[in-house]
Amino acid sequence: MAERVRAHIPEPTVLRLSIYQRILHGAASRGERTISSAQLAEAGSLNAAKVRRDLSHLGTFGMPGTGYDVAFLLERVDRALGLDRVWPVVIVGVGHLGRALARSPGFTTGGFRVVGLLDTDPAILGATIEGVAIRHLSELRDVAREHSPSIGVVTTPAGAAQHVAESLVEVGVCSILNFAPAVLNLPDRVLVRTVDLSVELQVLTFYQARLAGGAGLDNAL
Amino acid sequence: MAERVRAHIPEPTVLRLSIYQRILHGAASRGERTISSAQLAEAGSLNAAKVRRDLSHLGTFGMPGTGYDVAFLLERVDRALGLDRVWPVVIVGVGHLGRALARSPGFTTGGFRVVGLLDTDPAILGATIEGVAIRHLSELRDVAREHSPSIGVVTTPAGAAQHVAESLVEVGVCSILNFAPAVLNLPDRVLVRTVDLSVELQVLTFYQARLAGGAGLDNAL
Repeated sequence: MAERVRAHIPEPTVLRLSIYQRILHGAASRGERTISSAQLAEAGSLNAAKVRRDLSHLGTFGMPGTGYDVAFLLERVDRALGLDRVWPVVIVGVGHLGRALARSPGFTTGGFRVVGLLDTDPAILGATIEGVAIRHLSELRDVAREHSPSIGVVTTPAGAAQHVAESLVEVGVCSILNFAPAVLNLPDRVLVRTVDLSVELQVLTFYQARLAGGAGLDNAL
Repeated sequence: MAERVRAHIPEPTVLRLSIYQRILHGAASRGERTISSAQLAEAGSLNAAKVRRDLSHLGTFGMPGTGYDVAFLLERVDRALGLDRVWPVVIVGVGHLGRALARSPGFTTGGFRVVGLLDTDPAILGATIEGVAIRHLSELRDVAREHSPSIGVVTTPAGAAQHVAESLVEVGVCSILNFAPAVLNLPDRVLVRTVDLSVELQVLTFYQARLAGGAGLDNAL
């Protein structure tokens, strides 16, 4: 069943569900009762037909002239994204990025709760961030026993990432968000998403180099 | 011409070029002279046919039984990604994430140089990170005059992002990497990439909720 659903919902739609979630959350907090696909499209810089197609995946359809019921649609989107429950998260690697994530609203609200911070640097062990103490990586199994984290965030240097990811999988973590510039080799059942922030910069320079009429593909094509 | 090239290279290929760049860089630093599409595929968790198709976009073709010349291919990939020059980057918003990025190898090597750090918090103005002083946002125009930054990174709270992005565009920045959880409305000529780290978590929970047989789309489909 999971496979069937996965095949049905393309990843770009999943990414947009996340955008709709934020827009709907804003509309709900302003007391708005209904929202049209045109309004959702405008707020998300998308086109309305795409919005309607995306939302039809959730079995929700707007009414002509009225649009969508905000509360109902928000509940549907939250459920689709798994945000109708709380996901315990552990962060391994409490350097600058780990700290930034541990304090970011996106990681501490709306379905996520940081339950563990792990590192190996004696200088920072015992310090707390948002009420969570930084513990030694060797205590990962204890943290897992206490909190059953389902998501592990890897913010270590590249050289440590594979070992850390394997350790996370060993204690039962089945989804990993990897910020280390390393390709992780893990069992197929583990969901891995690698976010390489320098890739984001390189995508920008790829396009900007083209716009500037720079070297590169221009010559090759 | 730029449009034509953009149409030719799908974004997923651009993202993979960035992966090849890292793998090739590693191979070059180990003194390897050639690399096969199978080796590239293995190192990047991709399939070899896709690797060959991607690289054919660069006009580079491996030789049967030998593979690709590492130095030649790396140079081609670097040029395609615009990494054959140095891109000056300004970061606006020097909180935890801004600091993490300012210190990250991906932002300070390999084609990028942080030339400006801007914030409005008097408590941090004047401090330096990796040799760059944090200046007040009101000095953005001066920073732009001195360094002509082409890329602006927005790591402010959501409420400040639109204003900051407009200020960046006004001083000549034409590519923006936005980490604020806000949709930016900017002229079409400006390249904008929004990275919302909580979206990455939500994509994981979307799939994990499905795998766990949870509520949501299962019911809707």
